[in-house]
Amino acid sequence: MNSLAGWKDTIVALATPPGVGAIAVIRLSGTEAITIADKLFRGKKLKNQKSHTAHFGQVLAPSTEEVIDDVLVTIFKNPKSYTGEDTVEISCHGSPYIQQQIINACVACGARLARPGEFTQRAFLNGKMDLAQAEAVADVIAANSRAAQQTALKQLRGGFSSDLKLLRDELINFAALIELELDFSEEDVEFADRKKFQQLISNLKSQISNLISSFSLGNAIKNGVSVAIIGKPNAGKSTLLNSLVNEERAIVSEIAGTTRDTIEETLNINGVLFRLIDTAGIREHSTDKIENLGIERSKQNAERADIILHLIDMTDEDPNDFPWLKIYADKTIEVHTKFDKWRSQMEAQGISVTPHFSQNRIAAKTDFGIEQLKKVIFEKAIGESVNTENTIVTNARHHEALEKILESLNAIEKGMNKNISGDLLSIDIRRALHYLGEITGQVEVDRDILGTIFGKFCIGK
Amino acid sequence: MNSLAGWKDTIVALATPPGVGAIAVIRLSGTEAITIADKLFRGKKLKNQKSHTAHFGQVLAPSTEEVIDDVLVTIFKNPKSYTGEDTVEISCHGSPYIQQQIINACVACGARLARPGEFTQRAFLNGKMDLAQAEAVADVIAANSRAAQQTALKQLRGGFSSDLKLLRDELINFAALIELELDFSEEDVEFADRKKFQQLISNLKSQISNLISSFSLGNAIKNGVSVAIIGKPNAGKSTLLNSLVNEERAIVSEIAGTTRDTIEETLNINGVLFRLIDTAGIREHSTDKIENLGIERSKQNAERADIILHLIDMTDEDPNDFPWLKIYADKTIEVHTKFDKWRSQMEAQGISVTPHFSQNRIAAKTDFGIEQLKKVIFEKAIGESVNTENTIVTNARHHEALEKILESLNAIEKGMNKNISGDLLSIDIRRALHYLGEITGQVEVDRDILGTIFGKFCIGK
Repeated sequence: MNSLAGWKDTIVALATPPGVGAIAVIRLSGTEAITIADKLFRGKKLKNQKSHTAHFGQVLAPSTEEVIDDVLVTIFKNPKSYTGEDTVEISCHGSPYIQQQIINACVACGARLARPGEFTQRAFLNGKMDLAQAEAVADVIAANSRAAQQTALKQLRGGFSSDLKLLRDELINFAALIELELDFSEEDVEFADRKKFQQLISNLKSQISNLISSFSLGNAIKNGVSVAIIGKPNAGKSTLLNSLVNEERAIVSEIAGTTRDTIEETLNINGVLFRLIDTAGIREHSTDKIENLGIERSKQNAERADIILHLIDMTDEDPNDFPWLKIYADKTIEVHTKFDKWRSQMEAQGISVTPHFSQNRIAAKTDFGIEQLKKVIFEKAIGESVNTENTIVTNARHHEALEKILESLNAIEKGMNKNISGDLLSIDIRRALHYLGEITGQVEVDRDILGTIFGKFCIGK
Repeated sequence: MNSLAGWKDTIVALATPPGVGAIAVIRLSGTEAITIADKLFRGKKLKNQKSHTAHFGQVLAPSTEEVIDDVLVTIFKNPKSYTGEDTVEISCHGSPYIQQQIINACVACGARLARPGEFTQRAFLNGKMDLAQAEAVADVIAANSRAAQQTALKQLRGGFSSDLKLLRDELINFAALIELELDFSEEDVEFADRKKFQQLISNLKSQISNLISSFSLGNAIKNGVSVAIIGKPNAGKSTLLNSLVNEERAIVSEIAGTTRDTIEETLNINGVLFRLIDTAGIREHSTDKIENLGIERSKQNAERADIILHLIDMTDEDPNDFPWLKIYADKTIEVHTKFDKWRSQMEAQGISVTPHFSQNRIAAKTDFGIEQLKKVIFEKAIGESVNTENTIVTNARHHEALEKILESLNAIEKGMNKNISGDLLSIDIRRALHYLGEITGQVEVDRDILGTIFGKFCIGK
């Protein structure tokens, strides 16, 4: 499992977010963690203290013996720590200058700066968590909605892994029997009941397929659902946007990597994050160059969006029907706006209209139909509801491995139908087992894959 | 001392910097801190645990019992905590979403969101630190150079306070004798030796004056020294800037509240931060409107700067002398640039020049004279060196109080020379004692002042 050099070093990093705060925490982990801390620390001898105890004292600069800061040091003795190694957490004043000085002091006393994700990687290497759990750590930290956090937390707490373990155990049992047959191949016995095995494979296939198809939901949960709002100028786009967002009380956070001028607002429906992408009011067949550019951008947004809200002003005598939207019919929700105004117009003509929600008719100014519209949007994107009790795949690497497992299972099934020999069957079974194990790291995982997984972490985790 | 409502509430706040990191720490403090934590925490019963111990478990949402996060909880029992109250630190994953959920859960279980600086204010109210020490906490956090950090740390560790206590004790002793005289006023005795008292007052005056005059140094240490670089285009400004900054290995951090387009770089000399303010190359008597605006801005920078570096190109046959710079002669350092080039020109004319540093001649391209120039800048701004062992006043509130103490001491001295009666003398002594006590909070400090002091803190400290 030792796939990286230097993992016996004692490492150090800032564990709390960078910047100014009341306190900051610097984390040391490795065989020398407590020895190094003792070199810097003026207070009790940490070596003689119990695990999980906190001690007040000072950190001194190794060269000058000058006090860097008053700190609180908490020690964790192996294996009862996050990494499974001896770990020291130094809680200091939250000044970037002091943080840097303390980290420098740790390095001067023999620690090495941690690589991104190295603490979690060590937890994995020391058997504190499997690979799927380790990957969930980054997802837990990045989660910005209830569903995303619950899904990641379930994975971190081993839910996904134990599902996979069950599948794997069943497959291993059977594989063992097949291999046993190979050992006795000259006697032409069948230890492995082919009928039972066929049932098992079909069962596994359906479970793996469920996991695979949960990925689109998982992706929506993890990354949010993008919703493009498209409509003619004055179709009521900004009123709808305000009405949707005013209801919003969850934490609205900026989304990295998206352009400020197209992302307008985020909205939390039933714990799932929706990103509302406002598009410039579109008038088709415009001759204006700048407006044509706006149309181009709207088309791009529509293309990229998971859901399109197509706003149609009910009082507009010539509602522009955006012919190009038709190719996105599957993901488009037609929303009929200004229901109140239209209703008044009808009533002025002596036609009575009962105000109830149908055909996605809304009057955003009075919030009429807004709650129902949210439900419509949620169902279009996610379905009835999110049951975070079920295992939901959120990780592209897992999704890819699951696809390969399904391929192998299909090959096994096909082979059995053709009555191929046990040794050929065994190859496909091993392949399925390999990919199952790769998700949780039970089999040796490629060094590059490990590097990619942990390289995405922040330093200090 | 109880100058704010609600200080018996249990308070909660994020203690680490906001944002994403490996971990974040949420702090609860108050009589109910451990009870509230026990309501949220699934793991050991925290009430039964010893102070200064850390425990792994889960935080549950109070309404749904849903797991919010896996956490590590450290408990501190009063009075052995930062605030002097029962305190619980919840170390969770560094996700803003989780941080918010845990804080919400604490509030739902009876905690109140902390006001800025309220943890430190409680430490003050509970006698864990005096007011000067409490104020130093904010300075320690904001410190971004060695000198600033050492000065703030010295104040936090009570250095300044103990200096003041000595002065105050001497004055109190004498005041007691004077007051005793008043009790026996009909008997016309003199318990207080006027000659000794005169000596004491003169001694106090000199000490207070020293503290007062340390403020300009303290201010330079705390806020950095601003250095405006002024010179004609091609006088070598950017080369000098690069040469100064390339040497720089300290943490260069952005300075809040300053405009990006005038502040260029920061430089750390002997632990003091210098902010190098580059100015647009100035050509005097310009007729170009935009260039005139540049000159106007340079004049403003020169006016505001603590130090002006006036760059004069030694090879320029018409070195522009910036007549308006003369009014800033006291803070101006003339730097003669391109010494190498000029020397070559001289040698081409058969004139030999020995390359040694004098008249601030530099050749920034080869770093000639740069180290010496740094010394010149440091000495102009700070003096020979900073001795952070001496008490240095960095706080404007303290400076103001010290000025008032000096006023009172002068009044006492004047009164004694005029031989005024003990009861009149006593009024001035009490006034001096009051201001001395106000610095450390030994006398009742005005509610507004307390509000101002702690309002400047970040929330969570």
